[in-house]
Amino acid sequence: MADEITDNSQTVAAGQLRALIERIERLEEEKQTISDDIKDVYAEAKGTGFDTKALRTIIRMRKKDAAERQEEEAILDLYMAALGME
Amino acid sequence: MADEITDNSQTVAAGQLRALIERIERLEEEKQTISDDIKDVYAEAKGTGFDTKALRTIIRMRKKDAAERQEEEAILDLYMAALGME
Amino acid sequence: MADEITDNSQTVAAGQLRALIERIERLEEEKQTISDDIKDVYAEAKGTGFDTKALRTIIRMRKKDAAERQEEEAILDLYMAALGME
Amino acid sequence: MADEITDNSQTVAAGQLRALIERIERLEEEKQTISDDIKDVYAEAKGTGFDTKALRTIIRMRKKDAAERQEEEAILDLYMAALGME
Repeated sequence: MADEITDNSQTVAAGQLRALIERIERLEEEKQTISDDIKDVYAEAKGTGFDTKALRTIIRMRKKDAAERQEEEAILDLYMAALGME
Repeated sequence: MADEITDNSQTVAAGQLRALIERIERLEEEKQTISDDIKDVYAEAKGTGFDTKALRTIIRMRKKDAAERQEEEAILDLYMAALGME
Repeated sequence: MADEITDNSQTVAAGQLRALIERIERLEEEKQTISDDIKDVYAEAKGTGFDTKALRTIIRMRKKDAAERQEEEAILDLYMAALGME
Repeated sequence: MADEITDNSQTVAAGQLRALIERIERLEEEKQTISDDIKDVYAEAKGTGFDTKALRTIIRMRKKDAAERQEEEAILDLYMAALGME
Protein backbone atom coordinates (compact mmCIF):
# COMPACT_ATOMS: atom_id res chain seq x y z
CA MET A 1 0.00 0.00 0.00
CA ALA A 2 1.17 3.48 -0.84
CA ASP A 3 0.17 4.54 2.64
CA GLU A 4 2.56 2.29 4.53
CA ILE A 5 6.00 3.41 5.57
CA THR A 6 8.49 0.75 6.63
CA ASP A 7 11.68 1.32 8.58
CA ASN A 8 13.57 -1.87 9.41
CA SER A 9 10.99 -4.25 10.76
CA GLN A 10 8.49 -1.53 11.60
CA THR A 11 5.62 -0.45 9.38
CA VAL A 12 3.32 2.44 10.01
CA ALA A 13 0.04 3.37 8.34
CA ALA A 14 0.81 6.97 7.43
CA GLY A 15 -2.79 8.00 6.76
CA GLN A 16 -4.04 6.62 10.05
CA LEU A 17 -1.16 8.25 11.94
CA ARG A 18 -1.86 11.60 10.31
CA ALA A 19 -5.59 11.34 11.04
CA LEU A 20 -4.97 10.60 14.74
CA ILE A 21 -2.52 13.47 15.08
CA GLU A 22 -4.85 15.92 13.38
CA ARG A 23 -7.74 14.90 15.63
CA ILE A 24 -5.59 15.47 18.72
CA GLU A 25 -4.38 18.82 17.38
CA ARG A 26 -7.94 20.00 16.73
CA LEU A 27 -8.97 18.99 20.26
CA GLU A 28 -5.90 20.71 21.74
CA GLU A 29 -6.88 23.86 19.87
CA GLU A 30 -10.44 23.74 21.23
CA LYS A 31 -9.04 23.18 24.71
CA GLN A 32 -6.79 26.21 24.32
CA THR A 33 -9.74 28.34 23.21
CA ILE A 34 -11.66 27.36 26.34
CA SER A 35 -8.63 28.03 28.55
CA ASP A 36 -8.44 31.49 27.01
CA ASP A 37 -12.17 32.00 27.64
CA ILE A 38 -11.67 31.08 31.31
CA LYS A 39 -8.82 33.59 31.56
CA ASP A 40 -11.09 36.20 30.00
CA VAL A 41 -13.83 35.62 32.59
CA TYR A 42 -11.28 35.96 35.41
CA ALA A 43 -9.98 39.17 33.80
CA GLU A 44 -13.55 40.49 33.55
CA ALA A 45 -14.16 39.55 37.21
CA LYS A 46 -10.98 41.35 38.23
CA GLY A 47 -11.98 44.38 36.17
CA THR A 48 -15.30 44.52 38.05
CA GLY A 49 -13.47 44.49 41.39
CA PHE A 50 -13.64 40.82 42.36
CA ASP A 51 -10.70 39.08 44.02
CA THR A 52 -9.72 36.31 41.58
CA LYS A 53 -7.76 34.33 44.16
CA ALA A 54 -10.88 34.08 46.33
CA LEU A 55 -12.92 33.16 43.23
CA ARG A 56 -10.55 30.27 42.54
CA THR A 57 -10.83 29.09 46.14
CA ILE A 58 -14.64 29.28 45.99
CA ILE A 59 -14.70 27.24 42.76
CA ARG A 60 -12.45 24.61 44.35
CA MET A 61 -14.67 24.52 47.46
CA ARG A 62 -17.87 24.11 45.43
CA LYS A 63 -16.55 20.81 44.07
CA LYS A 64 -16.87 19.35 47.57
CA ASP A 65 -20.14 18.80 49.42
CA ALA A 66 -20.87 20.91 52.49
CA ALA A 67 -20.20 18.12 55.00
CA GLU A 68 -16.78 17.33 53.52
CA ARG A 69 -15.85 21.00 53.49
CA GLN A 70 -16.98 21.60 57.05
CA GLU A 71 -15.03 18.60 58.30
CA GLU A 72 -11.88 19.88 56.59
CA GLU A 73 -12.37 23.30 58.12
CA ALA A 74 -12.89 21.82 61.59
CA ILE A 75 -9.55 19.97 61.41
CA LEU A 76 -7.82 23.07 60.07
CA ASP A 77 -9.25 25.23 62.89
CA LEU A 78 -8.11 22.66 65.44
CA TYR A 79 -4.55 22.68 64.06
CA MET A 80 -4.50 26.47 63.86
CA ALA A 81 -5.63 26.70 67.49
CA ALA A 82 -2.94 24.20 68.53
CA LEU A 83 -0.32 26.35 66.80
CA GLY A 84 -1.64 29.63 68.18
CA MET A 85 -2.55 30.91 64.71
CA GLU A 86 -5.54 33.20 64.61
CA MET B 1 -30.37 46.23 47.18
CA ALA B 2 -31.41 42.70 48.06
CA ASP B 3 -28.55 41.42 45.98
CA GLU B 4 -25.79 43.12 47.90
CA ILE B 5 -24.02 41.47 50.80
CA THR B 6 -21.99 43.69 53.12
CA ASP B 7 -19.36 42.55 55.56
CA ASN B 8 -17.61 45.37 57.40
CA SER B 9 -16.69 47.87 54.74
CA GLN B 10 -16.97 45.40 51.88
CA THR B 11 -19.99 44.93 49.69
CA VAL B 12 -20.43 42.28 47.07
CA ALA B 13 -23.02 41.96 44.32
CA ALA B 14 -24.17 38.39 44.98
CA GLY B 15 -25.91 37.91 41.63
CA GLN B 16 -22.91 39.09 39.65
CA LEU B 17 -20.58 36.91 41.71
CA ARG B 18 -22.77 33.86 41.19
CA ALA B 19 -23.02 34.50 37.43
CA LEU B 20 -19.23 34.78 37.08
CA ILE B 21 -18.64 31.58 39.04
CA GLU B 22 -21.22 29.65 37.07
CA ARG B 23 -19.70 30.81 33.78
CA ILE B 24 -16.26 29.63 34.92
CA GLU B 25 -17.66 26.30 36.12
CA ARG B 26 -19.40 25.68 32.78
CA LEU B 27 -16.18 26.45 30.91
CA GLU B 28 -14.17 24.19 33.25
CA GLU B 29 -16.64 21.41 32.52
CA GLU B 30 -16.29 21.86 28.75
CA LYS B 31 -12.52 21.87 29.16
CA GLN B 32 -12.69 18.63 31.12
CA THR B 33 -14.82 17.03 28.39
CA ILE B 34 -12.22 17.94 25.76
CA SER B 35 -9.38 16.66 27.97
CA ASP B 36 -11.28 13.37 28.23
CA ASP B 37 -11.74 13.31 24.43
CA ILE B 38 -7.98 13.78 23.97
CA LYS B 39 -7.30 10.90 26.37
CA ASP B 40 -9.75 8.77 24.34
CA VAL B 41 -7.93 9.47 21.07
CA TYR B 42 -4.61 8.49 22.67
CA ALA B 43 -6.22 5.33 24.02
CA GLU B 44 -7.57 4.54 20.56
CA ALA B 45 -4.12 5.18 19.04
CA LYS B 46 -2.53 2.88 21.61
CA GLY B 47 -5.16 0.24 20.90
CA THR B 48 -4.26 0.38 17.21
CA GLY B 49 -0.59 -0.17 18.02
CA PHE B 50 0.78 3.37 17.96
CA ASP B 51 3.36 4.53 20.49
CA THR B 52 1.65 7.35 22.39
CA LYS B 53 4.89 8.79 23.78
CA ALA B 54 6.16 9.26 20.21
CA LEU B 55 2.79 10.75 19.22
CA ARG B 56 3.11 13.35 21.98
CA THR B 57 6.64 14.19 20.84
CA ILE B 58 5.46 14.55 17.23
CA ILE B 59 2.63 16.87 18.27
CA ARG B 60 5.06 19.00 20.27
CA MET B 61 7.45 19.11 17.30
CA ARG B 62 4.74 20.14 14.84
CA LYS B 63 4.17 23.34 16.84
CA LYS B 64 7.63 24.51 15.74
CA ASP B 65 8.61 25.34 12.18
CA ALA B 66 11.10 23.06 10.41
CA ALA B 67 14.03 25.51 10.67
CA GLU B 68 13.57 25.95 14.43
CA ARG B 69 13.31 22.20 14.94
CA GLN B 70 16.37 21.44 12.81
CA GLU B 71 18.43 24.01 14.66
CA GLU B 72 17.45 22.50 18.00
CA GLU B 73 18.36 19.05 16.76
CA ALA B 74 21.73 20.25 15.45
CA ILE B 75 22.65 21.62 18.89
CA LEU B 76 21.44 18.47 20.59
CA ASP B 77 23.48 16.28 18.22
CA LEU B 78 26.55 18.41 18.87
CA TYR B 79 26.17 18.04 22.64
CA MET B 80 25.50 14.31 22.35
CA ALA B 81 28.65 13.90 20.24
CA ALA B 82 30.66 15.90 22.79
CA LEU B 83 29.42 13.58 25.54
CA GLY B 84 29.96 10.41 23.54
CA MET B 85 26.26 9.60 23.49
CA GLU B 86 25.07 7.78 20.42
CA MET C 1 42.19 21.35 21.56
CA ALA C 2 41.38 17.70 22.14
CA ASP C 3 38.43 18.78 24.22
CA GLU C 4 36.63 20.67 21.50
CA ILE C 5 34.00 19.09 19.30
CA THR C 6 33.03 20.91 16.12
CA ASP C 7 29.94 20.30 14.05
CA ASN C 8 29.56 22.63 11.07
CA SER C 9 30.24 26.09 12.41
CA GLN C 10 29.59 25.14 16.03
CA THR C 11 32.24 24.19 18.55
CA VAL C 12 31.61 22.92 22.03
CA ALA C 13 33.99 22.48 24.94
CA ALA C 14 33.22 18.88 25.84
CA GLY C 15 34.87 18.95 29.28
CA GLN C 16 33.02 22.07 30.33
CA LEU C 17 29.73 20.69 29.04
CA ARG C 18 30.23 17.44 30.93
CA ALA C 19 31.15 19.27 34.14
CA LEU C 20 28.02 21.44 33.98
CA ILE C 21 25.76 18.46 33.34
CA GLU C 22 27.30 16.46 36.17
CA ARG C 23 26.87 19.38 38.59
CA ILE C 24 23.19 19.64 37.65
CA GLU C 25 22.69 15.90 37.98
CA ARG C 26 24.26 15.87 41.44
CA LEU C 27 22.02 18.73 42.55
CA GLU C 28 18.93 17.02 41.07
CA GLU C 29 19.84 13.93 43.08
CA GLU C 30 20.15 15.90 46.32
CA LYS C 31 16.81 17.56 45.56
CA GLN C 32 15.21 14.15 45.05
CA THR C 33 16.61 12.93 48.38
CA ILE C 34 15.04 15.91 50.17
CA SER C 35 11.72 15.40 48.35
CA ASP C 36 11.78 11.81 49.58
CA ASP C 37 12.54 13.02 53.13
CA ILE C 38 9.54 15.37 52.99
CA LYS C 39 7.31 12.49 51.85
CA ASP C 40 8.64 10.43 54.77
CA VAL C 41 7.73 13.12 57.30
CA TYR C 42 4.21 13.33 55.87
CA ALA C 43 3.94 9.52 56.02
CA GLU C 44 5.10 9.61 59.64
CA ALA C 45 2.56 12.36 60.42
CA LYS C 46 -0.19 10.32 58.80
CA GLY C 47 0.90 7.25 60.74
CA THR C 48 0.56 9.21 63.99
CA GLY C 49 -3.00 10.22 63.06
CA PHE C 50 -2.48 13.69 61.60
CA ASP C 51 -4.45 14.86 58.56
CA THR C 52 -1.79 15.53 55.92
CA LYS C 53 -4.07 17.66 53.75
CA ALA C 54 -4.60 20.02 56.70
CA LEU C 55 -0.84 19.97 57.39
CA ARG C 56 -0.16 21.11 53.81
CA THR C 57 -2.72 23.89 54.16
CA ILE C 58 -1.16 25.02 57.47
CA ILE C 59 2.33 25.09 55.92
CA ARG C 60 1.01 27.16 53.00
CA MET C 61 -0.70 29.54 55.42
CA ARG C 62 2.39 30.00 57.57
CA LYS C 63 4.20 31.49 54.56
CA LYS C 64 1.85 34.49 54.75
CA ASP C 65 1.77 36.98 57.60
CA ALA C 66 -1.31 37.06 59.84
CA ALA C 67 -2.73 40.29 58.36
CA GLU C 68 -2.51 38.98 54.80
CA ARG C 69 -4.13 35.69 55.79
CA GLN C 70 -6.93 37.37 57.71
CA GLU C 71 -7.71 39.68 54.80
CA GLU C 72 -7.89 36.71 52.43
CA GLU C 73 -10.23 34.91 54.81
CA ALA C 74 -12.45 37.98 55.18
CA ILE C 75 -12.94 38.18 51.40
CA LEU C 76 -13.58 34.46 51.21
CA ASP C 77 -16.16 34.63 54.00
CA LEU C 78 -17.87 37.53 52.25
CA TYR C 79 -18.10 35.59 48.98
CA MET C 80 -19.27 32.44 50.76
CA ALA C 81 -22.01 34.46 52.51
CA ALA C 82 -23.05 36.01 49.18
CA LEU C 83 -23.36 32.53 47.70
CA GLY C 84 -25.18 31.06 50.69
CA MET C 85 -22.30 28.66 51.45
CA GLU C 86 -21.85 27.85 55.09
CA MET D 1 -1.71 17.56 79.44
CA ALA D 2 -0.90 21.19 78.77
CA ASP D 3 0.14 20.20 75.26
CA GLU D 4 -3.21 18.85 74.14
CA ILE D 5 -5.78 20.99 72.39
CA THR D 6 -9.34 19.66 72.18
CA ASP D 7 -12.06 20.87 69.87
CA ASN D 8 -15.32 18.95 70.14
CA SER D 9 -14.34 15.31 70.06
CA GLN D 10 -10.93 15.94 68.51
CA THR D 11 -7.70 16.27 70.42
CA VAL D 12 -4.35 17.24 68.99
CA ALA D 13 -0.88 17.04 70.50
CA ALA D 14 0.26 20.60 69.85
CA GLY D 15 3.96 19.96 70.46
CA GLN D 16 4.06 16.99 68.12
CA LEU D 17 2.15 18.92 65.44
CA ARG D 18 4.52 21.87 65.72
CA ALA D 19 7.58 19.60 65.52
CA LEU D 20 6.32 17.88 62.37
CA ILE D 21 5.51 21.19 60.68
CA GLU D 22 8.90 22.67 61.54
CA ARG D 23 10.70 19.59 60.17
CA ILE D 24 8.79 19.88 56.91
CA GLU D 25 9.47 23.62 56.69
CA ARG D 26 13.20 23.09 57.21
CA LEU D 27 13.26 20.44 54.48
CA GLU D 28 11.25 22.69 52.12
CA GLU D 29 13.82 25.42 52.73
CA GLU D 30 16.72 23.10 51.90
CA LYS D 31 14.87 21.98 48.79
CA GLN D 32 14.38 25.59 47.72
CA THR D 33 18.11 26.28 48.22
CA ILE D 34 18.99 23.38 45.92
CA SER D 35 16.43 24.50 43.33
CA ASP D 36 18.08 27.92 43.39
CA ASP D 37 21.51 26.28 42.99
CA ILE D 38 20.26 24.38 39.93
CA LYS D 39 18.95 27.63 38.44
CA ASP D 40 22.35 29.20 39.09
CA VAL D 41 24.18 26.43 37.21
CA TYR D 42 21.83 26.84 34.24
CA ALA D 43 22.40 30.61 34.34
CA GLU D 44 26.16 30.03 34.42
CA ALA D 45 25.87 27.58 31.48
CA LYS D 46 23.85 30.12 29.54
CA GLY D 47 26.39 32.84 30.36
CA THR D 48 29.16 30.63 28.93
CA GLY D 49 27.20 30.20 25.69
CA PHE D 50 25.50 26.85 26.22
CA ASP D 51 21.92 26.24 25.08
CA THR D 52 20.00 25.48 28.29
CA LYS D 53 17.06 23.88 26.49
CA ALA D 54 19.44 21.34 24.91
CA LEU D 55 21.10 20.83 28.32
CA ARG D 56 17.72 19.95 29.85
CA THR D 57 17.03 17.51 27.02
CA ILE D 58 20.45 15.88 27.47
CA ILE D 59 19.87 15.49 31.21
CA ARG D 60 16.47 13.91 30.55
CA MET D 61 18.04 11.56 27.97
CA ARG D 62 20.84 10.48 30.30
CA LYS D 63 18.25 9.04 32.71
CA LYS D 64 17.46 6.38 30.09
CA ASP D 65 19.84 3.66 28.95
CA ALA D 66 21.18 3.78 25.37
CA ALA D 67 19.00 0.93 24.08
CA GLU D 68 15.80 2.53 25.41
CA ARG D 69 16.75 5.90 23.93
CA GLN D 70 17.64 4.42 20.54
CA GLU D 71 14.39 2.53 20.36
CA GLU D 72 12.43 5.70 21.13
CA GLU D 73 14.33 7.57 18.43
CA ALA D 74 13.72 4.81 15.87
CA ILE D 75 9.95 5.03 16.42
CA LEU D 76 10.07 8.81 16.26
CA ASP D 77 12.04 8.74 13.00
CA LEU D 78 9.55 6.28 11.53
CA TYR D 79 6.60 8.53 12.43
CA MET D 80 8.41 11.62 11.14
CA ALA D 81 9.10 9.85 7.83
CA ALA D 82 5.45 8.78 7.59
CA LEU D 83 4.39 12.40 8.07
CA GLY D 84 6.95 13.80 5.69
CA MET D 85 8.73 15.74 8.46
CA GLU D 86 12.44 16.14 7.98
